[in-house]
Amino acid sequence: MKKFGKKYEITSLSNEKIKFINSLYQRKYRKELNYFVAEGVRICKEALDNNWNIKYLLYDITNKNNVVIENIINETLTLGADAIGVTPKILTKISHKDNPQNVLGVFEQKWKNLPQAVGINTFVALECIRDPGNLGTILRTIDGVGAKYCILLNECTDPYSYESVRASMGAIFNVNIISSNIKDFIKWKLDNNINLIGTSLKDAVDYRNAKWKTPFILAMGNEQQGLTDELLSQCDQLIKIPMKGKSDSLNLAVSTGIALYESIRKNPN
Amino acid sequence: MKKFGKKYEITSLSNEKIKFINSLYQRKYRKELNYFVAEGVRICKEALDNNWNIKYLLYDITNKNNVVIENIINETLTLGADAIGVTPKILTKISHKDNPQNVLGVFEQKWKNLPQAVGINTFVALECIRDPGNLGTILRTIDGVGAKYCILLNECTDPYSYESVRASMGAIFNVNIISSNIKDFIKWKLDNNINLIGTSLKDAVDYRNAKWKTPFILAMGNEQQGLTDELLSQCDQLIKIPMKGKSDSLNLAVSTGIALYESIRKNPN
Repeated sequence: MKKFGKKYEITSLSNEKIKFINSLYQRKYRKELNYFVAEGVRICKEALDNNWNIKYLLYDITNKNNVVIENIINETLTLGADAIGVTPKILTKISHKDNPQNVLGVFEQKWKNLPQAVGINTFVALECIRDPGNLGTILRTIDGVGAKYCILLNECTDPYSYESVRASMGAIFNVNIISSNIKDFIKWKLDNNINLIGTSLKDAVDYRNAKWKTPFILAMGNEQQGLTDELLSQCDQLIKIPMKGKSDSLNLAVSTGIALYESIRKNPN
Repeated sequence: MKKFGKKYEITSLSNEKIKFINSLYQRKYRKELNYFVAEGVRICKEALDNNWNIKYLLYDITNKNNVVIENIINETLTLGADAIGVTPKILTKISHKDNPQNVLGVFEQKWKNLPQAVGINTFVALECIRDPGNLGTILRTIDGVGAKYCILLNECTDPYSYESVRASMGAIFNVNIISSNIKDFIKWKLDNNINLIGTSLKDAVDYRNAKWKTPFILAMGNEQQGLTDELLSQCDQLIKIPMKGKSDSLNLAVSTGIALYESIRKNPN
């Protein structure tokens, strides 16, 4: 049986646990330590509800008699993790914000492999994307269409950065995050005979005329350069979204959303 | 005939013009002075191409023999505005970034009134939205569907903030930005008999089943609270986007994009 966690207070920024948590705001340490920070009651609750492994919960000791926070503290302790009360000043320092959330959870990262059973799933593959807000927003949309997989190709921005976790609004806890190189990804696509749909400004069909039959992979590229030629050459279909004004493209998260909602229009059930 | 602007260098951060430009990174001063800053060659070029009134162009003096920058400098001078060469250090200080653009334009803001002739236009009304990235992204999408109007209701984030201008990718120069209070807006909608489509989580129809006939106004609310009851009560239709996962909503800019692209599907031409 798992033993209960401890509840205590820390008042010093130089405490080792506070330093550990603080370091998780840097990608280098997230990679090394395999933990990340989720801020806010709602997002922490979503993580716990989805059985993510919590290591620490930090809460604002001045926030008394808040039932929701008390419940999260108790849940944390029941799971065997420590609930640490800190001053608002420490929370502000850690979260690098003037107006910090009153709860902050430290969770273990989850990285999945390319799944062996493909089923009739929708996959979103992101190649070299740079903006954490875009990544989190896309995770939220992936969950929005009921899909389950986000494949990060080559070097993408970190899904477990604070900005990405926040932009996902908790969806990060419902989507399987996979990191892969192009070679393994292409082999997996070919082995499983999955329809790969890429976005491109040239030689592309209107997204509404594409074949969206599941399973498929929607591949979206870097904010500036789009998909690499290497990936484009492997696509079964290239799609574009019509642009009626002067702009030549949409924001990455917006175009991903438009494409994914087209796919559920074509796969109603 | 307009006289040519001057070209000169400034090397001190305490120069009055540099202080003026620096102040435009704060909303208070943008409101007072009615100017704003656009960063980067591409966005400044877009502004000039669309006849926005330039006051100053700042360029990096260490960036020699760059034809694109030389052209923008000449265009600025021809328009009677000053082109000011500064050190990379000054550009870094002004733009508050480690990696600043090598060109920075100061332009006059444009605020339009609710148009008297409605035509068969698409209008997007945003109520109390808070995130400048969302606002800029929505401006980009408005231009993407060939629409021309963005109406900001009550206190919204500033479209002329650096973050919004950047997220718009220059689309801010192609969209008419209107600021209105709810009362005038409702009167205008009623006087012109425009179909007002609001988004709501309850009592709403699937967005694909709404009547999207132009002219219409798509009204989107605050990121957390959505539309106010005051505005909801005036809507002719309430729509929602189906959510198939655990998330209960999409990012504001994503849902605006999905709705706007639905509208051009229903109004092809």
